[in-house]
Amino acid sequence: MHSKLEWDGKMGFQALGDSGHSVKVDVNTANGGQDSGARPMELVLHGLGGCSGADVVSILKKMKLDLKTLTMEITGERAEDHPKKFTNIHLLYRISGTNIDPEKAKRAIELSQTKYCSVAGSLSANITYELIIE
Amino acid sequence: MHSKLEWDGKMGFQALGDSGHSVKVDVNTANGGQDSGARPMELVLHGLGGCSGADVVSILKKMKLDLKTLTMEITGERAEDHPKKFTNIHLLYRISGTNIDPEKAKRAIELSQTKYCSVAGSLSANITYELIIE
Repeated sequence: MHSKLEWDGKMGFQALGDSGHSVKVDVNTANGGQDSGARPMELVLHGLGGCSGADVVSILKKMKLDLKTLTMEITGERAEDHPKKFTNIHLLYRISGTNIDPEKAKRAIELSQTKYCSVAGSLSANITYELIIE
Repeated sequence: MHSKLEWDGKMGFQALGDSGHSVKVDVNTANGGQDSGARPMELVLHGLGGCSGADVVSILKKMKLDLKTLTMEITGERAEDHPKKFTNIHLLYRISGTNIDPEKAKRAIELSQTKYCSVAGSLSANITYELIIE
């Protein structure tokens, strides 16, 4: 898997992956950037959510649960000292659907977090989650 | 730091971070997605590149080196077994400028990799690099 990044002359980069989709990554103006795209550490959380969300959708589908909506709110806590890495990441999954079985939904999330989610598996942070069925 | 993700009804998500920039994350059609955005694991590599690239630009500027171009090519190797996490990540930095001192450029990259890059610090993979001055 590849990523190619081209510098924009300030502090930002145009990033292109094997999928062919391009993403702008930048820092805020206080740090010399142009605020022209998502922050590098945000992209990690977005990747974690996209990865785990796709797992959960897929597993619930296999369980024949009728999912209507899925929203995730992810909070990343970072160390105070450099490199200010993620220490704890909390994922709140809000789901709605017809007769969603909470135990099955919880099982789908646990399978994602412990077995399938490649981004979760690549991070050193402690990852926790919470499920709200709406 | 936060990320909020809204499901698109298939396998993709619209992700929004504190910066206010939105990123679409999706999987390929073979896996039930719509190929409408970058893959989750690509976003991790993009974040790593954006993070380390901004460090290198900033450090070279402090060293008074006149950087003209910076391109990064990142290759992520993944485990074969689930969760198929990143095991090794290699970053190739291609830089050009006026009288770039290779030792200083190498030092800037090492400072990023070992001290400053938050994304590198958050990953469990072994990270290596290579520098080409063009």
